[in-house]
Amino acid sequence: MKPVRSFASDNNSGVHSEILAAIAQVNTGHVVGYGNDPYTQAAIARFCEIFGGDIEVFFVYGGTAANVLGLTAALKPYQAVICPETAHINVDECGAPEKFSGCKLIDVPTPDGKLTVDMVAPWLHFLGDPHHVQPRVLSITQSTEMGTLYTPEEIKALADFAHQHGLLVHMDGARICNAAEALNLPFRAFTRDAGVDILSFGGTKNGMMYGEAVIFFDTSLAADFEFIRKQGMQLASKMRFIAAQFNALLTNDLWLRNARQANRMARLLAHEVEKIPALHITQTPQVNAVFVQMPKPIIPRLQERYFFYVWNEELGEVRWMTSFDTTEEDVRSFIACVREMVL
Amino acid sequence: MKPVRSFASDNNSGVHSEILAAIAQVNTGHVVGYGNDPYTQAAIARFCEIFGGDIEVFFVYGGTAANVLGLTAALKPYQAVICPETAHINVDECGAPEKFSGCKLIDVPTPDGKLTVDMVAPWLHFLGDPHHVQPRVLSITQSTEMGTLYTPEEIKALADFAHQHGLLVHMDGARICNAAEALNLPFRAFTRDAGVDILSFGGTKNGMMYGEAVIFFDTSLAADFEFIRKQGMQLASKMRFIAAQFNALLTNDLWLRNARQANRMARLLAHEVEKIPALHITQTPQVNAVFVQMPKPIIPRLQERYFFYVWNEELGEVRWMTSFDTTEEDVRSFIACVREMVL
Amino acid sequence: MKPVRSFASDNNSGVHSEILAAIAQVNTGHVVGYGNDPYTQAAIARFCEIFGGDIEVFFVYGGTAANVLGLTAALKPYQAVICPETAHINVDECGAPEKFSGCKLIDVPTPDGKLTVDMVAPWLHFLGDPHHVQPRVLSITQSTEMGTLYTPEEIKALADFAHQHGLLVHMDGARICNAAEALNLPFRAFTRDAGVDILSFGGTKNGMMYGEAVIFFDTSLAADFEFIRKQGMQLASKMRFIAAQFNALLTNDLWLRNARQANRMARLLAHEVEKIPALHITQTPQVNAVFVQMPKPIIPRLQERYFFYVWNEELGEVRWMTSFDTTEEDVRSFIACVREMVL
Amino acid sequence: MKPVRSFASDNNSGVHSEILAAIAQVNTGHVVGYGNDPYTQAAIARFCEIFGGDIEVFFVYGGTAANVLGLTAALKPYQAVICPETAHINVDECGAPEKFSGCKLIDVPTPDGKLTVDMVAPWLHFLGDPHHVQPRVLSITQSTEMGTLYTPEEIKALADFAHQHGLLVHMDGARICNAAEALNLPFRAFTRDAGVDILSFGGTKNGMMYGEAVIFFDTSLAADFEFIRKQGMQLASKMRFIAAQFNALLTNDLWLRNARQANRMARLLAHEVEKIPALHITQTPQVNAVFVQMPKPIIPRLQERYFFYVWNEELGEVRWMTSFDTTEEDVRSFIACVREMVL
Repeated sequence: MKPVRSFASDNNSGVHSEILAAIAQVNTGHVVGYGNDPYTQAAIARFCEIFGGDIEVFFVYGGTAANVLGLTAALKPYQAVICPETAHINVDECGAPEKFSGCKLIDVPTPDGKLTVDMVAPWLHFLGDPHHVQPRVLSITQSTEMGTLYTPEEIKALADFAHQHGLLVHMDGARICNAAEALNLPFRAFTRDAGVDILSFGGTKNGMMYGEAVIFFDTSLAADFEFIRKQGMQLASKMRFIAAQFNALLTNDLWLRNARQANRMARLLAHEVEKIPALHITQTPQVNAVFVQMPKPIIPRLQERYFFYVWNEELGEVRWMTSFDTTEEDVRSFIACVREMVL
Repeated sequence: MKPVRSFASDNNSGVHSEILAAIAQVNTGHVVGYGNDPYTQAAIARFCEIFGGDIEVFFVYGGTAANVLGLTAALKPYQAVICPETAHINVDECGAPEKFSGCKLIDVPTPDGKLTVDMVAPWLHFLGDPHHVQPRVLSITQSTEMGTLYTPEEIKALADFAHQHGLLVHMDGARICNAAEALNLPFRAFTRDAGVDILSFGGTKNGMMYGEAVIFFDTSLAADFEFIRKQGMQLASKMRFIAAQFNALLTNDLWLRNARQANRMARLLAHEVEKIPALHITQTPQVNAVFVQMPKPIIPRLQERYFFYVWNEELGEVRWMTSFDTTEEDVRSFIACVREMVL
Repeated sequence: MKPVRSFASDNNSGVHSEILAAIAQVNTGHVVGYGNDPYTQAAIARFCEIFGGDIEVFFVYGGTAANVLGLTAALKPYQAVICPETAHINVDECGAPEKFSGCKLIDVPTPDGKLTVDMVAPWLHFLGDPHHVQPRVLSITQSTEMGTLYTPEEIKALADFAHQHGLLVHMDGARICNAAEALNLPFRAFTRDAGVDILSFGGTKNGMMYGEAVIFFDTSLAADFEFIRKQGMQLASKMRFIAAQFNALLTNDLWLRNARQANRMARLLAHEVEKIPALHITQTPQVNAVFVQMPKPIIPRLQERYFFYVWNEELGEVRWMTSFDTTEEDVRSFIACVREMVL
Repeated sequence: MKPVRSFASDNNSGVHSEILAAIAQVNTGHVVGYGNDPYTQAAIARFCEIFGGDIEVFFVYGGTAANVLGLTAALKPYQAVICPETAHINVDECGAPEKFSGCKLIDVPTPDGKLTVDMVAPWLHFLGDPHHVQPRVLSITQSTEMGTLYTPEEIKALADFAHQHGLLVHMDGARICNAAEALNLPFRAFTRDAGVDILSFGGTKNGMMYGEAVIFFDTSLAADFEFIRKQGMQLASKMRFIAAQFNALLTNDLWLRNARQANRMARLLAHEVEKIPALHITQTPQVNAVFVQMPKPIIPRLQERYFFYVWNEELGEVRWMTSFDTTEEDVRSFIACVREMVL
């Protein structure tokens, strides 16, 4: 089969060769299962270097689980999560947050996938009244599902507001590496230092095979996470193979190299899209996603050549994503194909 | 680190080299995520060859999830699962079955980890009375958590009884390859042909890195499993890498070679244990587990040298397991160490 | 304590004397518990007269339970309920629907608490995709939480649309008697005959002490409701006392007399409110609720004299409700008090 | 219909006349709903007199809910409740505890429905291991489902053991009045003073229409019970009518008079049973239940005349219960009927 790059999602790519090599390297002899092994300890130590000590780090299989279990650690079933309408937890997890935590998600409309204090404040009237769910967590995504970014100041404003009202901040960092690269900031500048309490640190969309990390900056929230993870069906028996991947990702700036390539290719793609009058970019592309409004009849024809998702059927809005292995040649071929169809 | 073989669990081993090679081989270019890729289709086709057509096969990350989600597909929350007291779902999944399905497990004591019709029958008095949970599934493990085996006839007797009363049969096949090797029977002889409706087919304990299969022989039960899997946080985005592992396991009899080595080493281990008067084998070892009662003071001393689990604190009963990569040398070194301590 | 009528809610009233008498009348001797008694059978028969045969009727303790359990009977946890943002199930049940059913509520903004086909249609793009919850039920409230009414034609349009797409229609009828009185239609004209599948028939807000009915017009949905009710902690042991109340409510038009008084008093209240220039009615009052926007500083002062709820803090919108026992004198005293304060 | 007394259950009886009178008495004017009314405050005050101050008291509709919600207040879903195999929560609540709390019940066999430290201790090996559910609550029933009683010393021994290991004690007091009467002790002697943390105080089986109380002696456990109750669908809108019943029950020793009559009639029944050689009492009757083993063929014939439940089909064991309104005449007629059949 001819290797083809799609622009459907950053999880259509495979695994970076350095990640595969790291997996092979730890495949030697027996180690105790479930994370009591030196590779897992090393990966946790690497996260501690990045985020500072006094944190708790846990590995899980996938991104939905990272979000759902991290949130569950902070929630009782009568509490609620306030999130943007477009949040992955709200639209792309098949109700897993509600099912596992028992909680309601309060989803608020946003123009760009980003929550603000003004959007959140009205929901706090509910606090204290047993007829209503009790807001307990603000969940934000960095970079967002709309390909946009929060500045550290924006996150800090949300976190300060949350903490003043007894709420916590969760960050879905499925694409946190893309965010850090684009912001040109260390991870902790827009997470821990900005007031985030719980972080899903994503690996799979940036060149790993599987595996995500749940990181608690407020370690009291992690007191029973070992049990939540096991009951949540996310305790990997051969944990060393997730750990090895994170060790590789966080070594020699592999995370940065991968994110940089993906982000750069999205900028190139956006640049080329702007030259085509029939196409209209709907969100400022800040990381590795380009949202484009295009003539509706062309969409299915283009999908015959390249698989990708329609974001908004009514508007004819599509999402194109780049990955760590997207090449300039991939982008140019794709744009040529688009041009041919719209002209 | 010096590679040491432990006898704690068959998940302390690593990944078989042919599995790793298969992973590397599919790591080329982009494919659509979430299982709509040719590798996943090929692995499913391989299972269809083994079990016959008209089945439904789904991959998940881990064994607890395979059990819990497979059961959930058959259950409403007011129903119940009857299982042996020693079942993995009952004691080793931190309540995940109850949490996710909402159901009660009715656990019955057994001498050897095996359910019989006589044990199950009294619970059917509950049927139809809304004050009581409604038995809906019998769950058996093959090979069992006690290292024992059901014959196909035993399974058929349970399944016939179950089906006569409107119940289904679930099999936890975390070690199904060890069972098939020991029984010297094709997989379907003691699963589909014996009346099993839902099967967890385990890979991780037999040389894979991660990944299990949920197989529905009654395909009507699978109608909405795609949704259950996603809501159950077990839909792998880069699914091809689970599929590739199963493809390798089920090619060139790798599953059989791995299981044979593990089973053979357990027989060797049991044979050696029997020669030591202070040790007493408590379950007839039929696959890759040896249960041994030993003088209690020796247990912690031996654990300093070899990590393993105490099965019954009160009785001084321990569990020793062999793996696909256990060698004769491993067994002899271990036995030498045990001998030294008990004498 | 001087009996004072509040305008806070129609559940601040007590129990109608005919209801109390009916309770006393059945309090004689022993009957089998849990509904296998002649009084319960009689009440169910009365509902069958009203709605036609071939229905299933179950009594529960309260209104939240009627909604949650009725919905649960139609739902699997990965499915979703589409409802107005203002629905009781969405804002006033503390997340009970999500907790018990495991499902997401998809809440859509409406100007008047009423769902339309146009609001619902966009969410059906989700159907079939395992990443998204699957819409399964439309839930409407009659009369609505905003004091408005659906016409039978409006309900039929929604139900036809729902059924065409494999969805069901649930009606929260906590105030169904007020609706029937205001519409001047038999109950079945705007429920069963309009395509409703599941109905919560409310008693408490119309003069009963406790007790609501869950009615299934699609009886296949009721197949296991007995178990759902018991597991949902809503199976009353001394069921006859709920049944007796419904028997009384549905005899000699007590339901109609009660609803008529409440509705009439709301019209009077609205009429008087319209005469006060500082007050602005925000929803056309069709049953027993009047929504009023008023100068914010007056609200707390008025609440010192009369307890009632603020509906929208930002807008200064309050809700005043009348009950079966509200008198003209009550309304006039209240209006006099309001007048005094705003002038 | 001729009033007939059955021996099926103490919930086949009606409502005591003083309870009915109390309901009528509070049915005057409007009060705020959901418990913010003087009647509810008075009933809570009455419980404080009985149990001492610094407690939290909440009313719910039914006994299953009292148990399930009280337990949920103390539990996280990965935790477990240890209870006797015969516990109401284990066999008669259709899995409601598992469904609502997410927790596993660890049920242990007992000869008489009573838990002891020896039965509980082995399960504490599980503590700290994330593969296993974590025991958190011991649940005992007083009087038990087998008609037996714990002494205060027995309860204290369990509670001391529980507290030493970080566990709590829950008491299902559906028949706590029968227990207090039989023990001739104040309520608090065998609850709060013996170390019970959470108590379901039952009213329905002792002459009330509906309504149970959940009492927290460890008030920290009650911090968010208002939300749990509402989300648990157990917040009564017209709460005053539950409160009025408890006020009456706890006034002029109505609870004691009712329990005394029921207990006395059970002793009479047991006394008469002992005279019949074909009948064998299987549990020492200490309160209002008599368990009798009888010739199996007679059971269905007797059930044609008197409705009652078979406790153990295999053994021919039946349960006969007396109620607050059982008379000597009732017992003598019943015994005459039994005699006639067995002779």
